Amino acid sequence: MWISELARRSDLPVPTIKYYLREGLLHPGEAVGATKAQYDEGHVRRLRLVRALTEVAGMRLDDVRRVLDAIDDESLSWHEAIGSAHTRLAPPVNATGTDAERMRVDALLERHDWELAEQSQHRDALAGALASLAALGHPPSNELLDTYADAANLISERDLEQLQETDRAQAAEHAVVSTLLLEPVLLILRRVAQENSSRRRAS
Amino acid sequence: MWISELARRSDLPVPTIKYYLREGLLHPGEAVGATKAQYDEGHVRRLRLVRALTEVAGMRLDDVRRVLDAIDDESLSWHEAIGSAHTRLAPPVNATGTDAERMRVDALLERHDWELAEQSQHRDALAGALASLAALGHPPSNELLDTYADAANLISERDLEQLQETDRAQAAEHAVVSTLLLEPVLLILRRVAQENSSRRRAS
Repeated sequence: MWISELARRSDLPVPTIKYYLREGLLHPGEAVGATKAQYDEGHVRRLRLVRALTEVAGMRLDDVRRVLDAIDDESLSWHEAIGSAHTRLAPPVNATGTDAERMRVDALLERHDWELAEQSQHRDALAGALASLAALGHPPSNELLDTYADAANLISERDLEQLQETDRAQAAEHAVVSTLLLEPVLLILRRVAQENSSRRRAS
Repeated sequence: MWISELARRSDLPVPTIKYYLREGLLHPGEAVGATKAQYDEGHVRRLRLVRALTEVAGMRLDDVRRVLDAIDDESLSWHEAIGSAHTRLAPPVNATGTDAERMRVDALLERHDWELAEQSQHRDALAGALASLAALGHPPSNELLDTYADAANLISERDLEQLQETDRAQAAEHAVVSTLLLEPVLLILRRVAQENSSRRRAS
């Protein structure tokens, strides 16, 4: 298809698509003469992914590029691509934790038989979140953290069951999309559940 | 305590505290003469909450004010204050869903015996997230949504067990703090769990 059709299919203006092409967020089409190119379904899917990451997940373009790089890196295995995309997503916590909090995190990971890559930001991010909660006088108990970990395990097993694509790029894309776009679903459902649990206890 | 001590205790500069006082994010101290005032533990706690909401949860000051208004509104019952604070938190989804997606959300709520306030933004936010996932070619199955809802229910029951304060303001504060600050904990644990589930399946 020509770029005008690609614009219609992806619901994006042609200048935006040309900008993504220049920035390397979209791979080039197949050149037809000096100034024209043909695009295919892979371009449509990639543009939808960029839109989801920017418009729904609210990511900046340089963060989007990092995630796309992980998806496109053929040297990584599936689970490495998932881990790498995760690592390249900005960690959602700003605070830093103390050694004591990092030890609590390590104990939590051990209780749930979880391993983390040496350079993973998750350990520091979790320790930072614990530090913030403690500073506010609401340190979470181990029982609470274990319940959260059990819930995380429950849904991650289900997440992976959906990963049945045979195509590697599509599987990595699915992993990133569902990681990011199911996050708001999980958070909203937690709020809905809290409101309902709260109302039941009040009545 | 004087404002200098309050600054030390809350780890904030005096001009920032004065700014929060002018903006109504912090209630006035007890006046001592024309230009001085005394502050107490309630001021320390409120400033820690404002810091957590801005620095950890990354909220803008006008959103922080909305959350504080809900906490401080004595006309609300506990569970109304929790619901109201939730409603005033910015919804994490930008996309809008179709009628079909809103019906899927209603069916999900019904399966889990959950009710929503008529004006709740959660229904639209969930429908919007479903629309984004469908547009990307990864619509979540009902089984997946039910697993997420079960996980949300598991942790919200545990969240509320921690809510044992007798003081209403403190309970509402705790609810907001744990809603917001445990969100990154849940999301990071989900990523850790995904990486570990993925590695186990790969090996």
